[in-house]
Amino acid sequence: MRRKLPVAVLGATGMVGARFISLLSSHPWFELKAVAASERSRGQRLREAVRWLPPEGLPEEVLELEVRSPKPRELEEAEIVFSALPSEVAGSIEEEFAGEGFAVFSNASSHRMDEDVPILNPEVNADHASMVEVQRKRRKWEGFIVTNPNCTAAVLTLSLKPIQEEFGIRRVIVSTMQALSGAGYPGVSSLDILDNVIPYIRGEEEKVERETLKMMGAPFKPASFKISASCHRVPTLDGHLEAVFVELERQAKPSEVAEAMASFEGEPQRLKLPTAPKPPIVVRGEEDRPQPRLDRMEGRGMAVVVGRVREDRSLGGVKYLVLGHNTIRGAAGCSVLNAELFAALKLL
Amino acid sequence: MRRKLPVAVLGATGMVGARFISLLSSHPWFELKAVAASERSRGQRLREAVRWLPPEGLPEEVLELEVRSPKPRELEEAEIVFSALPSEVAGSIEEEFAGEGFAVFSNASSHRMDEDVPILNPEVNADHASMVEVQRKRRKWEGFIVTNPNCTAAVLTLSLKPIQEEFGIRRVIVSTMQALSGAGYPGVSSLDILDNVIPYIRGEEEKVERETLKMMGAPFKPASFKISASCHRVPTLDGHLEAVFVELERQAKPSEVAEAMASFEGEPQRLKLPTAPKPPIVVRGEEDRPQPRLDRMEGRGMAVVVGRVREDRSLGGVKYLVLGHNTIRGAAGCSVLNAELFAALKLL
Amino acid sequence: MRRKLPVAVLGATGMVGARFISLLSSHPWFELKAVAASERSRGQRLREAVRWLPPEGLPEEVLELEVRSPKPRELEEAEIVFSALPSEVAGSIEEEFAGEGFAVFSNASSHRMDEDVPILNPEVNADHASMVEVQRKRRKWEGFIVTNPNCTAAVLTLSLKPIQEEFGIRRVIVSTMQALSGAGYPGVSSLDILDNVIPYIRGEEEKVERETLKMMGAPFKPASFKISASCHRVPTLDGHLEAVFVELERQAKPSEVAEAMASFEGEPQRLKLPTAPKPPIVVRGEEDRPQPRLDRMEGRGMAVVVGRVREDRSLGGVKYLVLGHNTIRGAAGCSVLNAELFAALKLL
Amino acid sequence: MRRKLPVAVLGATGMVGARFISLLSSHPWFELKAVAASERSRGQRLREAVRWLPPEGLPEEVLELEVRSPKPRELEEAEIVFSALPSEVAGSIEEEFAGEGFAVFSNASSHRMDEDVPILNPEVNADHASMVEVQRKRRKWEGFIVTNPNCTAAVLTLSLKPIQEEFGIRRVIVSTMQALSGAGYPGVSSLDILDNVIPYIRGEEEKVERETLKMMGAPFKPASFKISASCHRVPTLDGHLEAVFVELERQAKPSEVAEAMASFEGEPQRLKLPTAPKPPIVVRGEEDRPQPRLDRMEGRGMAVVVGRVREDRSLGGVKYLVLGHNTIRGAAGCSVLNAELFAALKLL
Repeated sequence: MRRKLPVAVLGATGMVGARFISLLSSHPWFELKAVAASERSRGQRLREAVRWLPPEGLPEEVLELEVRSPKPRELEEAEIVFSALPSEVAGSIEEEFAGEGFAVFSNASSHRMDEDVPILNPEVNADHASMVEVQRKRRKWEGFIVTNPNCTAAVLTLSLKPIQEEFGIRRVIVSTMQALSGAGYPGVSSLDILDNVIPYIRGEEEKVERETLKMMGAPFKPASFKISASCHRVPTLDGHLEAVFVELERQAKPSEVAEAMASFEGEPQRLKLPTAPKPPIVVRGEEDRPQPRLDRMEGRGMAVVVGRVREDRSLGGVKYLVLGHNTIRGAAGCSVLNAELFAALKLL
Repeated sequence: MRRKLPVAVLGATGMVGARFISLLSSHPWFELKAVAASERSRGQRLREAVRWLPPEGLPEEVLELEVRSPKPRELEEAEIVFSALPSEVAGSIEEEFAGEGFAVFSNASSHRMDEDVPILNPEVNADHASMVEVQRKRRKWEGFIVTNPNCTAAVLTLSLKPIQEEFGIRRVIVSTMQALSGAGYPGVSSLDILDNVIPYIRGEEEKVERETLKMMGAPFKPASFKISASCHRVPTLDGHLEAVFVELERQAKPSEVAEAMASFEGEPQRLKLPTAPKPPIVVRGEEDRPQPRLDRMEGRGMAVVVGRVREDRSLGGVKYLVLGHNTIRGAAGCSVLNAELFAALKLL
Repeated sequence: MRRKLPVAVLGATGMVGARFISLLSSHPWFELKAVAASERSRGQRLREAVRWLPPEGLPEEVLELEVRSPKPRELEEAEIVFSALPSEVAGSIEEEFAGEGFAVFSNASSHRMDEDVPILNPEVNADHASMVEVQRKRRKWEGFIVTNPNCTAAVLTLSLKPIQEEFGIRRVIVSTMQALSGAGYPGVSSLDILDNVIPYIRGEEEKVERETLKMMGAPFKPASFKISASCHRVPTLDGHLEAVFVELERQAKPSEVAEAMASFEGEPQRLKLPTAPKPPIVVRGEEDRPQPRLDRMEGRGMAVVVGRVREDRSLGGVKYLVLGHNTIRGAAGCSVLNAELFAALKLL
Repeated sequence: MRRKLPVAVLGATGMVGARFISLLSSHPWFELKAVAASERSRGQRLREAVRWLPPEGLPEEVLELEVRSPKPRELEEAEIVFSALPSEVAGSIEEEFAGEGFAVFSNASSHRMDEDVPILNPEVNADHASMVEVQRKRRKWEGFIVTNPNCTAAVLTLSLKPIQEEFGIRRVIVSTMQALSGAGYPGVSSLDILDNVIPYIRGEEEKVERETLKMMGAPFKPASFKISASCHRVPTLDGHLEAVFVELERQAKPSEVAEAMASFEGEPQRLKLPTAPKPPIVVRGEEDRPQPRLDRMEGRGMAVVVGRVREDRSLGGVKYLVLGHNTIRGAAGCSVLNAELFAALKLL
């Protein structure tokens, strides 16, 4: 790639915003030009305005950036915007950017279920990238919006993809143990979660069910398998752990399913995208893995880790555990990978 | 009840042993006469030997008891023994006591799957009490062995019983978030579980699956529905939380299922047994309950708390959360209730 | 006491407010008539408005109370108000109530360092109650304001009182490990404190130092010993643990100091006030106590627990650990005890 | 350095052993030749025998090493042994190795207080290295024993050194919040520490007090300032946090003390030893640092982080917080640095 593509981050002061900045500040294809956030932070240095920093910190020069408003004319030097805006405000702001010709890669849920907006998890449904053509025509936009999935669905679908391809899926049941960072910062009160589990995350189960079917079907045609999710918050910092039960279309041994996962490669691996984990699915043989603290940074947070693939006698299929980093693979990292896919496919 | 029945506790120095002692030390029908444990503790005061105390402490006079060996002739003044022995040694010791005429109520897993030993969770299968007649004949014992179920199965089956009775069950999938006390004391290292989940508990899934079917069938005839469990350890002190997905034989609305649970009563409630919780199943309407820290002591740890009863579109049935105290309802409390049932039914 | 005194709680929807309500809703001398909070909650049932509930819950009839504004004319049926208002607003509101003739017992820090307002921890400085006479004259108030100390200072001063009385104090150094509830609800983000300690609590060290001297001196004449505090937040739910190093005026063995603490009684014990713990200081002999989870509810949260009283070779004195429940002894419980003292002394 | 020095690790299967291996397996001066542990592990691959792995894992080839017995003739290819043996057995084994000519760098406490054995924290007391000459003569050993300090003392003394040099120290009081890994693996039961603090660590306070004086004095002549420690275990994984109160010999402003710490360099920095952190003391200006989770890996776990340097009005000096990684700077890393010092000074 000759010149780096200029990019900006919307919603830069929150947790997913900080993850975007960290991934973009030393990116081989993209150059971070500007950061934007709500009016409250406008005019401050990012250093003052940022509410959370990743463990590795952020580069000094980025911390010196002035926070701008999330308006197209304030971010004219960028061609791509990554959106970590809260879903209450993301909808119209992202449309405005797309209308002005920006490529918008968004973590917000606002547009995910719009019929012509792809939810893109590129190992799973790179072919959905083509949906933006329809989107542009219908909406008469120069730019476009591509979303990454809900964090839980991102991890789940990546683990399901090789199963769907090789054995077919009839039914999926997923029960989650989700990390605190999924609620953003400050998010969950320590008084609520210490020595406790909160067995409810607003809107999460519906998102997991609907987004999974949309991603795992063809463009504009959701998959038709059955799916049910039960979502729960546990006291871990990062890494969503999911217990998955799958009814297969075609009988298979657990070892065959594990092998299909371990050898799986998606479009990002074939295109050697910079942020693509190799392999995207790490299958571990120990009886007590994956564990959030030990496995969440696998593939720099972009891989998912699968373990305990075993027979499910209830559904006639398999059950397993899968873990992925919810704010990297399940949020910022996925949108960065989406942008890389678009760049590699010359869709920008 | 005229005189109190004399009882002893085997395995008195561990966590479940301490729970037994706490429940028995002010019991209206039973009188704690002696405590026993492994040779290592023999001759010590319980005060010195006990490794864990319940939050409420134990009575001074009990702490002064001398720890004896778990041998029938050392515990002759007892008629009933409650066993919290580790399963590695419980098998033959319990048989010896039963052979010598003691009524043995055990938390150990050693004999649970013996064909003629009931796993008794008395709201669920009080009718299995009759199995001890067969057991005595076959084994030519004066006494008998009755076990309580695995902690996870105890909580699960209590919640399933009214569903089975009113709607029938075809299939059950359960994904657990189990407390640290389930591993005993000292049990799980803090270095393993802080900021983490361990997605494996040795032998647990098999126990949950087999014991549930044995309890929910007729005596000597396990239930035939399908069941699959995935068991996980989370950083909570007490209280196993379980996400349950149920395929029903007969269609029902979630509200009907919730109502069946809320109005359920079992034999312990009908017989007004002293340790019986009223109601045995507490159904909460909040969207974020049950929670381990808030709900585990419901019914003094003997009730289970159900929440989020909702439609399951994958299985055609319902999904819900259930929580119960693993060392009370799921261990010592259940065996005490079993002994009360035997006393009330004049089976002692 | 003939009739119960009518009382109201200001700031009823937060954590300390809920503790006040819990203590007052079955009080032998006081009758809870009304609850008030900020405009945001006005007109709601307490059930809807309350942000946090104590583990024991609150009575149904109290949860049905309508939340009023914290204005004297809206709470006319009360004679005493207990204030859990945030310190940003407590100052003028409490003055208004005192001016209108209410006895105000406040947990807010706003007036604590006013010269004529007592900080009252009644085992420590019951004689400071007389300061309200000066206060009333100076301010021409019908009513008055009495504050309870900062939570850390409340625990510390109770443990220091018998040492001061029997041996004299030259110097105190205290290093704290404070519970999450000290920051209110929602307070500390779980993302900040899991697997972590935050070695800073805004304003806390100054409060501990100044309030301790004010309480441990004569009315209007602070004590003159030297004191230094270092305050830190740890991941515990309730119970402030403090490592205390004391230089004595008169040499004493650790066992003498421990004995002075264990046999200590204050005015609340002599007057047999309903909320007074007996004894106020529990001295434990184990080498690893006090522990927050095990000891915080000692004396229904009103006692402090001391352990590890040992020689301090650096200062020439003793060092020890002390623990107290920060929202009971260190907040609501202390103000309720203060009101009981005023009632018993006929100062209301 | 021409050839790498051949080294072995004793006590290789525990937590500090694993830290030793991690630091040594890619070391520029040392080459790990062998690992040894107790008889129980003998003959196993390290992979099977190791009880704990660092987050970064260990190299495959090291995991394939066969565990040997901790006997000189089984480790003949090594010249240096690093000892992470438990103190119950370390004493005589380390003497045997020293007698056979090995340079022993030990984390065990067994020999620390032997008059002729240096406790070496090389930024603090590099000059104590010379004590081994006396040791060899007295004991007629070819080799020698050098110990690293107790983890808490290692962190404390590094922070105190520049204060001692520039302002003089009269008195030190330290109150600690120590991480779980300080107790080794499995160490502290999760049931003891969740939602809790344990205000006692066996032998720790005595070690901190004695070792600090030994290190901060001249060889064979302990320092004479007064010191008192209170040691407590908190629920953090790694990183000991210490609240330190210091009475100075010569008055100084907190800013001067902070500057002395920030600009401090020791012998390891001057000699540019491979494991030496630069700077050894990181002084942070934020009001809420250092924090264990955020700061423990500073300088790859070899630096200490200081914050909140402020006036102490009680002692007439300063108080501050210091944090260091207890199993790196406070254990394995310190002994590796000690060996580097000996290599650089041609003392091997």
